[in-house]
Amino acid sequence: MRNIMLIIAYDGTNYHGFQVQNKTSLKTIQGTLERTLFILTKEHTNVIGSGRTDAGVHAKRQVVNFNSATRIPTEKLPLALNSLLPADIVVREAYDVSNEFHSRYSAKKKTYCYTFFNDKVMDPCWRNFAYRVPMRLDINEMKKACKEFEGQHDFRAFCASNTTVRSFIKTIDYCSIKTEDKIIIFKVTGNGFLYNMVRIMGGTLLEIGQGKRCAEDILRLLATGDRTKSGLTLPPQGLCLLAVDY
Amino acid sequence: MRNIMLIIAYDGTNYHGFQVQNKTSLKTIQGTLERTLFILTKEHTNVIGSGRTDAGVHAKRQVVNFNSATRIPTEKLPLALNSLLPADIVVREAYDVSNEFHSRYSAKKKTYCYTFFNDKVMDPCWRNFAYRVPMRLDINEMKKACKEFEGQHDFRAFCASNTTVRSFIKTIDYCSIKTEDKIIIFKVTGNGFLYNMVRIMGGTLLEIGQGKRCAEDILRLLATGDRTKSGLTLPPQGLCLLAVDY
Repeated sequence: MRNIMLIIAYDGTNYHGFQVQNKTSLKTIQGTLERTLFILTKEHTNVIGSGRTDAGVHAKRQVVNFNSATRIPTEKLPLALNSLLPADIVVREAYDVSNEFHSRYSAKKKTYCYTFFNDKVMDPCWRNFAYRVPMRLDINEMKKACKEFEGQHDFRAFCASNTTVRSFIKTIDYCSIKTEDKIIIFKVTGNGFLYNMVRIMGGTLLEIGQGKRCAEDILRLLATGDRTKSGLTLPPQGLCLLAVDY
Repeated sequence: MRNIMLIIAYDGTNYHGFQVQNKTSLKTIQGTLERTLFILTKEHTNVIGSGRTDAGVHAKRQVVNFNSATRIPTEKLPLALNSLLPADIVVREAYDVSNEFHSRYSAKKKTYCYTFFNDKVMDPCWRNFAYRVPMRLDINEMKKACKEFEGQHDFRAFCASNTTVRSFIKTIDYCSIKTEDKIIIFKVTGNGFLYNMVRIMGGTLLEIGQGKRCAEDILRLLATGDRTKSGLTLPPQGLCLLAVDY
């Protein structure tokens, strides 16, 4: 059996997230990929993603792998799959990888971004790809707060409260804010992310931008380990998985 | 009767263009605005746009006007209408204007842009807002060609062949190409545009970028007045009406 890795991009607007749901009638990225692979290879595959993305969340370079006995040459797979996939999922690259490779367990780092649209009225072309923030924001204070996230911390205060994981300790390598015209992009790279972590980090940064909190509050918040003390969970459409490193 | 001007933005993906069609079942920007105004004011209005945009074409600041006896204060109109409009049409601003004001006849200048996505694979989040061009382009030659469009010319060679208008003579004030990463934006300001003119100008610029033509060909093409000699009409989704000046 081959172990094939795909780098895919998707517009998550019309999907109930990456992972196949119990209610199989719900359209998911994984389910759509598995059905498309079945059409192409006549094999029932299990597509493993580097991680789940929620409904409405997008990806520029999500990584997936699956086992297959197909004889289709690797370099032909992107075009073959793209000719069968809907326009909101695209296979960018395909590689043969060793049997040990596992999209989720082998992942070393991930990079996400969250996009804000900073204006009184929404640009309708951005409505599925950004979260509108009407008020003026203190971008410098938000940038300072980003630096506080960097390093190894217990992120329990920045994790959906119903999560059960072995460890809440994650290392953030890089966290930044960039602006261009009305677009504000919060970008973060780390060795792992808890459920809703980026959206809660973004919600907390937003409150710092509004002057409700200051940059120095981040370390205090991390120390509390209390989800109720940090900011709101931002809506999904602004979130995008940019890259997964192995 | 008041004469009210609205500045609107829309994602044209799910509309059969701006103008109400004979087949009234087709969803249009004008029809949606008129129905929404009826819900708000109980008046049957005729919404006049600065110009039609085709199916799939977007607008950042399209200008429309309509007559109304409504007593709703002008400054309350954007919020009132936005609460009733679908998310892909947004009213940015509203003004009371003189009875002489006519969105189309009073327009002095318009600015459009056409967006290319220059990569081997499409980013699915851009699929409704840009036209993918996989090959490497000579951006400098395209920029030179833009300058050739500037000034007063007979644009018969850059107009859909079935058009009947009084004059094909238009003045282009400014024409430019800007790039950022994979995005190439062709922007043009002029005192008027013929049917499909921006999309044919863009299609011709694309052939110049590919080396099939050179920048100096533009003046020769303009001189022929022959539509069959210029480039292909680009697809609608890359086109966006940016501004209308009065």
